[in-house]
Amino acid sequence: MGKVSPFAPTELPHLGAIDGVRLATASAGIRYPGRTDLLLALFDPGTTVAGVLTQSKTSSAPVDWCRAHLRHGMARALVVNSGNANAFTGKRGHEAVEQTAKEAAEAAGCQAADVYIASTGVIGEPLIASKIASRLDAMARAAKPDAYEAAARAIMTTDTYPKLATRKAEIEGVEITINGIAKGAGMIAPDMATMLAFLFTDAAIEPVALHEVVAPLAEDSFNAVTIDGDTSTSDTLLIFATDAAARRGAPRIARGDDKRLANFRTALADLMRDLAQQIAKDGEGATKFVTVTVKGAKTKKAARAIAKSIANSPLVKTAIAGEDPNWGRIVAAIGKAGEDADRDRLAIWLGDVLVAKDGAVATHYREQDGAAYMKNREIAITVDVGVGKAEATVWTCDLTADYIAINTDYRS
Amino acid sequence: MGKVSPFAPTELPHLGAIDGVRLATASAGIRYPGRTDLLLALFDPGTTVAGVLTQSKTSSAPVDWCRAHLRHGMARALVVNSGNANAFTGKRGHEAVEQTAKEAAEAAGCQAADVYIASTGVIGEPLIASKIASRLDAMARAAKPDAYEAAARAIMTTDTYPKLATRKAEIEGVEITINGIAKGAGMIAPDMATMLAFLFTDAAIEPVALHEVVAPLAEDSFNAVTIDGDTSTSDTLLIFATDAAARRGAPRIARGDDKRLANFRTALADLMRDLAQQIAKDGEGATKFVTVTVKGAKTKKAARAIAKSIANSPLVKTAIAGEDPNWGRIVAAIGKAGEDADRDRLAIWLGDVLVAKDGAVATHYREQDGAAYMKNREIAITVDVGVGKAEATVWTCDLTADYIAINTDYRS
Repeated sequence: MGKVSPFAPTELPHLGAIDGVRLATASAGIRYPGRTDLLLALFDPGTTVAGVLTQSKTSSAPVDWCRAHLRHGMARALVVNSGNANAFTGKRGHEAVEQTAKEAAEAAGCQAADVYIASTGVIGEPLIASKIASRLDAMARAAKPDAYEAAARAIMTTDTYPKLATRKAEIEGVEITINGIAKGAGMIAPDMATMLAFLFTDAAIEPVALHEVVAPLAEDSFNAVTIDGDTSTSDTLLIFATDAAARRGAPRIARGDDKRLANFRTALADLMRDLAQQIAKDGEGATKFVTVTVKGAKTKKAARAIAKSIANSPLVKTAIAGEDPNWGRIVAAIGKAGEDADRDRLAIWLGDVLVAKDGAVATHYREQDGAAYMKNREIAITVDVGVGKAEATVWTCDLTADYIAINTDYRS
Repeated sequence: MGKVSPFAPTELPHLGAIDGVRLATASAGIRYPGRTDLLLALFDPGTTVAGVLTQSKTSSAPVDWCRAHLRHGMARALVVNSGNANAFTGKRGHEAVEQTAKEAAEAAGCQAADVYIASTGVIGEPLIASKIASRLDAMARAAKPDAYEAAARAIMTTDTYPKLATRKAEIEGVEITINGIAKGAGMIAPDMATMLAFLFTDAAIEPVALHEVVAPLAEDSFNAVTIDGDTSTSDTLLIFATDAAARRGAPRIARGDDKRLANFRTALADLMRDLAQQIAKDGEGATKFVTVTVKGAKTKKAARAIAKSIANSPLVKTAIAGEDPNWGRIVAAIGKAGEDADRDRLAIWLGDVLVAKDGAVATHYREQDGAAYMKNREIAITVDVGVGKAEATVWTCDLTADYIAINTDYRS
């Protein structure tokens, strides 16, 4: 499994119960014997759901299932397995999803359409649905309200630590809890680079409003993480809102732009950023956590494209691993992004060190200042491309020999 | 400098003289003392030129110079230096180019506008033009018609072998020679990932026609090479046609679609592909040469985008380094390309081994067949995305620990 990320938290956050959510995990032997690889979450009636799914043109069977059922926006169960992504498995893959949904619905006492499914792991190998189905009854009986850490562990593939976060918010004076678990994106071997995130809250928010809240926040959190590319076949973000807070007087929110969501939105954004950064910090072989901010772009989309071009550049990422303030590689990455940038107004900072300005090395820049900064474990690269006012931030990690070692190992 | 590529030729091709071209090289100490880093090519009056330059938004000062002067399409001299890319050097960079052009024009006895310039090496450091200028007079006097190998060596940065190719063609029964030299693209450290190619021929082809011939061929040769990204700040392809064959009865061609160019075009395409493949085979740390062909796409552009997505995927490239027939990573790379692909009609071959078909693993595929194939030094990945008839091929290399070692070394 390789070394544990130097960013692994010394203490995991404690996630308390959320009214209306119960969790159970199991070892179903989906790929490896003897490790937990299955999560069942049960939701009380009235729970709404919204989500953001991979844009991949080769999306997995579970992603297709979720996309179809998110339309009605109600949920009673979530089944997640690690070890097999059930992607590129053709008709059999869809059958495996249907069988899992059917069995989970029986265990949860609901309709199959109220079951959401996510899978992560190896691509192209048939998923034996019976391995999952045979566990669900017992799991439903054993489900508990406070099993978030076990849940976060069950969805891991080659993550070196479980990813958990919790926040409190209020809606019209009623306290709301948001819990979240996630697994790592990118540079995940021997399996695929898949990002999964499941968020749970007791807020009472109707499905469309829930989607209107979560989708833009995904842009600035999970979609701002880039390790070795963009989307996997299985990337899945789902948020479940159990409605339980309505019993404590919270209003039921029907519109995403409802002003009463302001505090909830801020807390949710913070939690999603937290989980996203945890993912970037657990990139395979990572020794540095890197924040790339692009300012002065024409549009936010352009800013993000330039930031991703920098964050995905193997030359930039290896320079960071080598603690080399090699800003020439940053310039090249900006240039190849294909977005507008004014070379003669470009400015680059490494942390607070102004390295380049107005199309040339900054007058007072000294190489030793850049080199000293690069010794930090957390690196901030800021670029002003000088053509507008839009800005975007992405997070990544460095590219090290450990990454190569992990990913050149034959799957076994 | 790391190990020499296992694909380095045991014997370099011999490039004979081309009437109207003379070459000289020198050690100008631009970055490292004691290595040749400067090339001067002189062309007889009447030489035409065409070229394809980087699309980077942060293109270098020499690229800007060439772009401006290619419009008139006549050439008398070419100056190329390695060691410093003269990119992101602001106003001083442009002054350095102007000074170099002026001095080269004096040495060659021509106008500055007839001088073409290319630079490769570190970005953001001022290029001391006097180091170049002071050599040009002596170089012009020493220039010889058959110094192609020395020329190819002078433009190298971290290439592990010089890249040379030559072809014969005929235009209306008159023998034409085409010589070419190139330097490596991508994964070039400590300098930038720059691809330079200079082609020389005695054909008599007017500038616009020359451009019409060479630009589409660049798409299927140099632009089909991808190592760790796309364009650098300095990518430059120039072709010089000296007109000398006209004295031997060759027609002077004014249109790119002139039928009499058929044989020349074929030979030129072959030479350009040869040089492009030499570049891919010299990717830093490369142990495998990889050809990715995408068929069944809606457009050629889509086919190329999917092929590049596969060829640029660190997960695919590390799997190849590890001799792992991990076609799941190929599926994911197809999916993330963002182009149309029919998951349920997708087919994947490793060499002749059909691995996946119709959205799932192929019935007769055995893992040991894929594994045996991956032990080859040259790997062909073929994909049919099942939505159309367009096709494209790109070349790349694997991603190894040597690449990381080379690129994490601090510049020095």
